[in-house]
Amino acid sequence: MERFFDPKSVVVVGASNTAFNLGATICNMLKDYLSYTGAVYAVNSKGEVVNGCPGYSSVLELPQAPDLAIIIVAARNVPGIIHDCAQKGIKRIIIESAGFSEGGETGEAMQCEMDDVARKNGIRIMGPNCLGTLSTRNKFCSFYGVNPSLVEMNQVFESPGTMSYIIQSGGVAVLVMESLYYDLIGINKVVSIGNKCDVDEADLIDYFQSDATEVIGIYLENIADGRKLMEAAARSRKPVLIYKVGKTKEGAMAAMSHTAGMANNDSIFDAACRQAGIIRLQSIDELHSLPKIFTEMPRLKGKRIAAFTNSGAFGSIAADLLVQAGLQMARLAPQTQERLKKAGQVFNIKNPVDIGPALPQTYLDIFEILLSADEVDGLLPLLSVWQTFVIDCLHELLKMCKHYDKPAAIYTPNAIAKSIAIRAKHKIPIFETSEQAVRALSVSHTYYASLRRRNLLYDAMLQDDADNRPIAEVVS
Amino acid sequence: MERFFDPKSVVVVGASNTAFNLGATICNMLKDYLSYTGAVYAVNSKGEVVNGCPGYSSVLELPQAPDLAIIIVAARNVPGIIHDCAQKGIKRIIIESAGFSEGGETGEAMQCEMDDVARKNGIRIMGPNCLGTLSTRNKFCSFYGVNPSLVEMNQVFESPGTMSYIIQSGGVAVLVMESLYYDLIGINKVVSIGNKCDVDEADLIDYFQSDATEVIGIYLENIADGRKLMEAAARSRKPVLIYKVGKTKEGAMAAMSHTAGMANNDSIFDAACRQAGIIRLQSIDELHSLPKIFTEMPRLKGKRIAAFTNSGAFGSIAADLLVQAGLQMARLAPQTQERLKKAGQVFNIKNPVDIGPALPQTYLDIFEILLSADEVDGLLPLLSVWQTFVIDCLHELLKMCKHYDKPAAIYTPNAIAKSIAIRAKHKIPIFETSEQAVRALSVSHTYYASLRRRNLLYDAMLQDDADNRPIAEVVS
Repeated sequence: MERFFDPKSVVVVGASNTAFNLGATICNMLKDYLSYTGAVYAVNSKGEVVNGCPGYSSVLELPQAPDLAIIIVAARNVPGIIHDCAQKGIKRIIIESAGFSEGGETGEAMQCEMDDVARKNGIRIMGPNCLGTLSTRNKFCSFYGVNPSLVEMNQVFESPGTMSYIIQSGGVAVLVMESLYYDLIGINKVVSIGNKCDVDEADLIDYFQSDATEVIGIYLENIADGRKLMEAAARSRKPVLIYKVGKTKEGAMAAMSHTAGMANNDSIFDAACRQAGIIRLQSIDELHSLPKIFTEMPRLKGKRIAAFTNSGAFGSIAADLLVQAGLQMARLAPQTQERLKKAGQVFNIKNPVDIGPALPQTYLDIFEILLSADEVDGLLPLLSVWQTFVIDCLHELLKMCKHYDKPAAIYTPNAIAKSIAIRAKHKIPIFETSEQAVRALSVSHTYYASLRRRNLLYDAMLQDDADNRPIAEVVS
Repeated sequence: MERFFDPKSVVVVGASNTAFNLGATICNMLKDYLSYTGAVYAVNSKGEVVNGCPGYSSVLELPQAPDLAIIIVAARNVPGIIHDCAQKGIKRIIIESAGFSEGGETGEAMQCEMDDVARKNGIRIMGPNCLGTLSTRNKFCSFYGVNPSLVEMNQVFESPGTMSYIIQSGGVAVLVMESLYYDLIGINKVVSIGNKCDVDEADLIDYFQSDATEVIGIYLENIADGRKLMEAAARSRKPVLIYKVGKTKEGAMAAMSHTAGMANNDSIFDAACRQAGIIRLQSIDELHSLPKIFTEMPRLKGKRIAAFTNSGAFGSIAADLLVQAGLQMARLAPQTQERLKKAGQVFNIKNPVDIGPALPQTYLDIFEILLSADEVDGLLPLLSVWQTFVIDCLHELLKMCKHYDKPAAIYTPNAIAKSIAIRAKHKIPIFETSEQAVRALSVSHTYYASLRRRNLLYDAMLQDDADNRPIAEVVS
C-alpha cells in the first residue's frame, strides 16, 4: 500500500498540453508545488513533454516501470492502458477517470475486464472515478484539478498531522480539508477511493494501523464487502469514524448515480458498527468537527459530566443535551460543593456550575475543583469569551485535562464565526455548537467503552488461538 | 407596551459613579452611544449626576414621572422603589436586579409584594432578572453591561430589520445578536423578559403583530401561562419560532436555578405548539439561523423539492435529509428532464441534478428549468463556490425565486467560515450546513400549512361570533 502514498516514480497517463487538461494539473502540482523529487512521466497521444515531465505516446515506451500509474483519460481507453501497464510491470494504478460501473452496462463490462487483468498480474488498483492519494509527510498528491495556491491546500502540507481520511467522493474530501484549515487538526493522509473496484476502506483501515495516523475518518456511499470492513474496524486500535450516505431509499438511489454505490440496509449497518466499535457519524461535518476530542483530549472513561458556564441559560441547555446523549449530569459531592462555594462568585454550586462576572483565578479554581473531583469523569465548559482572559484560562484548562486524564469539550457561546477565529488563532479545541461539544463527549466515551470490550475479546481470542480458530469469526 | 420600547423619558434607579456600576452602563449607552434625546435621570443614594444625567436620591424627587423606570439595585431594595414609583405615577418598570423567585423564599415574598403594588396602581413590570428592551428603530436600549463599541452592537442599530426576539436569558440574547452580525437579517426589537412576573411572551407576541416585525423568535425556560401563550401564537399572523429548554428533568432543574423556570411537560408542549402553529426549534442556533428562510424567501407551498449540486456526494446526502425531514424528492417530469439534458454538462438529469464543471449560463438555465417546473415546489441548491461566478449565479437565483414564488434554501459545501464570509459580504441567504438548509425548507412548509389551517379556523370562528363564543376556546 505504501507505494500508493510514497511512490518513487510516477506516470500520469492522459497529461498533455491541451487547454484545461486535468492530467497536467497533477504534473504541475507534483513538480511546481510539492517539489516532488522522483521521476514524473507524461503519456499522451503526441508523446509531448508536460511542464518538464518527459512525454511518451504509450506506457510501453517508458524507460522504466514506475512505482505508480495515474490514469486520467476517457473511460473507453482505460482497459487498453491497464493491459499496457501489466505488460510493462507496473503494479500500482490509480484510475481517476469516471464512466465505469456508475455509468451503466458498457462501463460495467469494462470494469470486469480491468479487474481480470489486475488479478492475473498482481496489480492493485485504486478507483476508478476517484482522486487517489494525498500524503502530507511524503509531500505526494495525485488529486487532479486542485489549485495548490489555495491557502487551505498550503496549510494541509505545511502542518502535517495525525488525521487520515478515506473518502469515496472527491467533493467531500475537498470540503473536509478546507474545513480543517480553520480547525486544529493536521492531516496525515487522504484517500479518495471512488468506485473502489479493488482497494477499499478495509484495506486502508489496516494500512493506517502502522503509520502516523491517530484517527481514521471515512465517508462511504456504499459497502461492497461488509464483513471485511467490520473485521478491519474491529481490529483497529485507532478510532474509526464513518459517515455513510443512503439512510433512506432516496439517498441510496442518488448515491447509485454518483459512485455506483448501492447503499445497504441501514439498520443492519448500524448494529454492525456498534459491534465493531465504529463511531457512526450523524453528518458530513462531524468528519472534521469531532476528531479533535480524540487528538487533543484524554478519553472519557465514565459518563458523569460537570457543566460549567458563565452564561446561565447554557447550563440548562447543557443538561438537556447531556441526558439526551446518554451521558449523566454528575452529582457533585458535598465537599466539592463546599470548595466551589469558597471559589466565590458562583451562582449555582450544583451542576451546572454557573458563575457571574468573575476573575480569571475563579475560572481556574473551578476547573481544578471539578476535574479533581472523583464524581466527575469529564467537563463541559460553556464559556462565553466576554474578555480575552477567558482564552488564557482555556489554555490552562488544556493542561489540567492532561494532568487529570479527563477530557473537556469546550464550547464558547459566541457567534460561530468568532469562535472559529478564536480556535484557529489560539489553538484551543473549541466546538462550534453546544450540541457538537456534547456529541464529542458521547463519542469519546463510546469509543473508550468499545475498545475496552474489544480488548477483552482479544484476550479471549489469544486463548482460542490454540484451537486455530480464525480471528475473523470471533470478531464479526 | 410601546412605552417599554420608545419611552420619552427614563429614570435609571441604581446608576451611580461607583466603579463597575451596572446602572451607569445603561446611562452611558443611552447618552453617549445612542444619542437618546429624552430625559435620563439617575437615582442613587448620594443623588449624584451620572454622565450628565441629573441625579436624585429618590424617585420621589424627580421633576416629572418618566415614561419608564429601570431598576438595577440589590433585590431587597426593589420593593421599596416600586412603592415610590407607584406614588410618583410611573406606569412602566423594568426590574433588572436578580434575586427574586429564582433565589428562594425571601425572594418569592418580595415578588408577591411587588405584584400586589403593580396590580393596584396599573403598573406594568418587565423582569425581574432581565435586561429589558432594545429597539433599533427607536434607538433605545435598557441592557446593562453591553459594550456599545462592539462592532456587533453597532451593526444591530445601524441596520434595523424585521426580526424580533423575546428571550428569557440575557446571555442568549447577546449570542443571537452577535450571530446575526454575520448573517443577513436585521433586528427590529429584542426583549429579555427574565422571570416575567408580569409582561410575558404572549403579551409581546400580540404587540409584535402591529409593528415592523416579520418573524418572532422566542427563547423560554418556563411557561407560566400555557393557554395565554398558545392563544397569542394561534392569533399571530407572523411566524412564531420557539426554543424551550427543559426537555429533560435535568434541564428543567437547571432552568429552575437560572430564572426560576419550572419547565413544563415537554410532550404536551410539543402537541400544543403544533396546534397553535408554533415552529418549535431544535437548538439555540436555529433562533438566528432559520429566520432567513422567512425574511428572504417565499413560503414553501408543497413538499416536492429539487436538489441541485455541483458536488455529487451532496446530492445523496440531500436526498437522505429531505426524506428524513418529511419532505419529498420531486419526480422530474419527462419534459423537465429533456430540458435539463439540453442545458448540457448535466451528469444526472433526475433529481438530485448533478453537474460537473460548467459555465455560469448552465447554472442559470438549471435554476430556471427547476423553478418553473410544476412538479417542483422548492429548490435545494448545494453549490460549492469553486469559482466566484457561482456567487453571481446565486444572486440571480434570489430574483428567480421571487419571480416563481418558490423558495430556495442555499447551502455552499465549503468550510463554514468561508460560507459565512460569503453570506455576510454578498448578502446571500446561505445556510451553514446541509441539515440547516433542509430544516429551513421543512419549517417554511410547516408554517405555510399551519397558517392555511388556522385561516380556515378563523373563517369558521367568524361564523361562531354570532353565538358569542370566545375565540380562545375554539383555538386552544
